Amino acid sequence: MPASPIGPELQRLIDLLAKMPGLGPRSAKRAALYLLKKREPVMRPLAFAMADAADKVMPCAECGNWDSIDPCAVCADATREAGVLCVVQDVGDLWALERAGAHKGRYHVLGGLLSPLDGVGPDDLNMGQLIDRARSDVVTEVVLALAATVDGQTTAHYLTEHLTDAGVSVTRLSQGVPVGGELDYLDEGTIAAAMKARRPF
Amino acid sequence: MPASPIGPELQRLIDLLAKMPGLGPRSAKRAALYLLKKREPVMRPLAFAMADAADKVMPCAECGNWDSIDPCAVCADATREAGVLCVVQDVGDLWALERAGAHKGRYHVLGGLLSPLDGVGPDDLNMGQLIDRARSDVVTEVVLALAATVDGQTTAHYLTEHLTDAGVSVTRLSQGVPVGGELDYLDEGTIAAAMKARRPF
Repeated sequence: MPASPIGPELQRLIDLLAKMPGLGPRSAKRAALYLLKKREPVMRPLAFAMADAADKVMPCAECGNWDSIDPCAVCADATREAGVLCVVQDVGDLWALERAGAHKGRYHVLGGLLSPLDGVGPDDLNMGQLIDRARSDVVTEVVLALAATVDGQTTAHYLTEHLTDAGVSVTRLSQGVPVGGELDYLDEGTIAAAMKARRPF
Repeated sequence: MPASPIGPELQRLIDLLAKMPGLGPRSAKRAALYLLKKREPVMRPLAFAMADAADKVMPCAECGNWDSIDPCAVCADATREAGVLCVVQDVGDLWALERAGAHKGRYHVLGGLLSPLDGVGPDDLNMGQLIDRARSDVVTEVVLALAATVDGQTTAHYLTEHLTDAGVSVTRLSQGVPVGGELDYLDEGTIAAAMKARRPF
């Protein structure tokens, strides 16, 4: 078998690109060729942006959101309600809630979910600080915006217990039929949950 | 509408990631979050590999392949037949032929295809050098491994004319039923081409 036609610098770039979510070994090659063709407009700026973000973007000491300022822009925004904290698993979930414009308060990013099977316990997550924030006089409600999965439920139960002790009211996102969703395409669990949580019209 | 929860460094990273093939705006966000979580094992090495490859990987002056040495590893490999040149559109096609172990000679990368509609003419491609190489005493055959598209055919016809004048024999990849392909799922053009080029069993 002949030696690989791909040199070491290029091969290393391809191997690292292939680790990114959404890129496999083949699409990493395609991405590497694309970058080399767009060297000045994309490749060099992207290399710089990556190194720059790796240096500057840090978790907010208050809420765990990622930003280059600390406290982050959300915590620093005085127009947001300080009394309502929305608890999310990850920064991506915070972005999703902001995209929906669904929450006018502050956030708390856990950085994961409790998972006994994977050995993730309360000390592995940003939880102690959440309890501390909930104990402050400012916070009156904590909204749990966690995934409707086993780990999400486990985490919600654990937090509800400790947050209720801290003297705040604990709420969670409702479950039900997605907007625009057709019943015929929904799983049984969602339909059962929507029926159980039915409301007067 | 509230300000974006995503800071400028992160937003710039996401915007640049979204330009890569295979990543859209949403998957670019996911990729950015992944990179920030894998800062030391992936993000910093990838930023370095990108800048490093942008500096070092250059087109081979001989054949147009991309490598950090010039002539490239393929041209420098004395065990390869110097008499047979395989003409490809792009470096990715060279890699595909090498993956198949289908060609033991050298390559010539055009960097594109003739496309009157898109205003791509012979001078925009690495063609003059191909004719020069074909004129040398060493080269006896040029294999056109170009796409079976209109632009690929146009390019093949143009090259065949000029290469025949240069005194080499010009061949092209055969067209037909792909290995493992079922007739029922093949387009009519391919079936017609395979029938026309049928061979004794």
